[in-house]
Amino acid sequence: MLDVLKNRRTVRKYTADPISESLLNELLESACRASTTGNMQLYSIIATTSDEVKAELSPLHFNQPMIKQAPVVLTFCADFNRFVMWCEARNATPGYDNFQGFVTAAIDALLVAQTFCVAAEAKGLGVCYIGTVTYTTKAINQVLNLPKLVVPLATITVGYPDGEPAQVERLPLSAVLHKDRYVDYTAEDIERYYQDKEALPANRKFVEENKKENLAQVFTDVRYTKDTFEKFSKELLEAVREQGYLF
Amino acid sequence: MLDVLKNRRTVRKYTADPISESLLNELLESACRASTTGNMQLYSIIATTSDEVKAELSPLHFNQPMIKQAPVVLTFCADFNRFVMWCEARNATPGYDNFQGFVTAAIDALLVAQTFCVAAEAKGLGVCYIGTVTYTTKAINQVLNLPKLVVPLATITVGYPDGEPAQVERLPLSAVLHKDRYVDYTAEDIERYYQDKEALPANRKFVEENKKENLAQVFTDVRYTKDTFEKFSKELLEAVREQGYLF
Repeated sequence: MLDVLKNRRTVRKYTADPISESLLNELLESACRASTTGNMQLYSIIATTSDEVKAELSPLHFNQPMIKQAPVVLTFCADFNRFVMWCEARNATPGYDNFQGFVTAAIDALLVAQTFCVAAEAKGLGVCYIGTVTYTTKAINQVLNLPKLVVPLATITVGYPDGEPAQVERLPLSAVLHKDRYVDYTAEDIERYYQDKEALPANRKFVEENKKENLAQVFTDVRYTKDTFEKFSKELLEAVREQGYLF
Repeated sequence: MLDVLKNRRTVRKYTADPISESLLNELLESACRASTTGNMQLYSIIATTSDEVKAELSPLHFNQPMIKQAPVVLTFCADFNRFVMWCEARNATPGYDNFQGFVTAAIDALLVAQTFCVAAEAKGLGVCYIGTVTYTTKAINQVLNLPKLVVPLATITVGYPDGEPAQVERLPLSAVLHKDRYVDYTAEDIERYYQDKEALPANRKFVEENKKENLAQVFTDVRYTKDTFEKFSKELLEAVREQGYLF
């Protein structure tokens, strides 16, 4: 089973094969056994299979082809709505429309999302997290009809892999692991931990193609720039507040 | 492999057996294959095994016995610190000290945390998420020496299970799953989805013991009250801002 985790790779191309409803439900049922705060299950999962809704979602995910191509698009949302409706139906006074409520429900949603991915990969499916969900949250809320206290945090495309993509590198474990307490990095640590990544032919090519001095600049100048992060930051904050988490 | 997910239960009591370093590292290596935004690996993992650090963490987790009893306490942190140090060493200008940065790194950290849990359970270990990490974040930051841009989001105790706890209930899948778009719940939906949970002997006993009218009130009046959520909300927000994510 660890082999499933160790050998995984993100899959961005899918065959035309649909995922049967029984398999999808089995995977989702398994995912819902993930830990959840106080067994409150503060999440909802939206399984989009219709071409119509995919077409509406596609531009919000910057037209990444996986949205239309994958048989299923799953959007995992932090959701205090259902729980609060239950509380209100029971003369119980909820107090979750705040930052702690948002973070708690976000954690629940992400644990289910990731457990789903592991389950799907164990059954031979491939998945891809679509990071744009935190960039265009307001518009996604509208397309998916999300009520107050529901915020999408992970969009995952799922399908049978068309081909086997290369597995990308990771930093050595020692770069992300600290013993007992955090020991901050020295300049030498940074050099040591990033040197293999920077030396990889695929990453060198990436630097050349983008006409940058080095790999870090591809991130800061092209992929995840300060300007876009600040813009999306403001919009995400507005979206979360619009959904009723006030902070 | 789905059986591992389906049959899992949270484990709060551990035998005295230590977890070998080679096994722990193998599980962590496997976890680090989880999806990560742009392969930036925006997380750090702190593996606490020393009695001294556990003793400092214990009161911050409200003296829940798992902290001292588990052979390993893992704290998974959203971490833009390492990545930003690398950018700065490469004359690249990072712009991640904002809400989008926090959410992006939080997602990365939680995917790794949950993948670790699945890996650990597949190898016969038991885990428990300790929710107090988002209540006492400032103090945990101090004990673990967390620098700017590092925020703990999941604390997990791990060890070999001492006994097999009962598996707790979940809502039916239909309660958390929406097709294509979110369909908000009606009053009847809420009744239907929560009735089995409310009827369970364990939950009825819980209501009686807490001298409440119903299960929802156990949550709102005892376990997750409005007062504590609002207090912890304010403190968590301060902690995240203190770590340099400004919003």
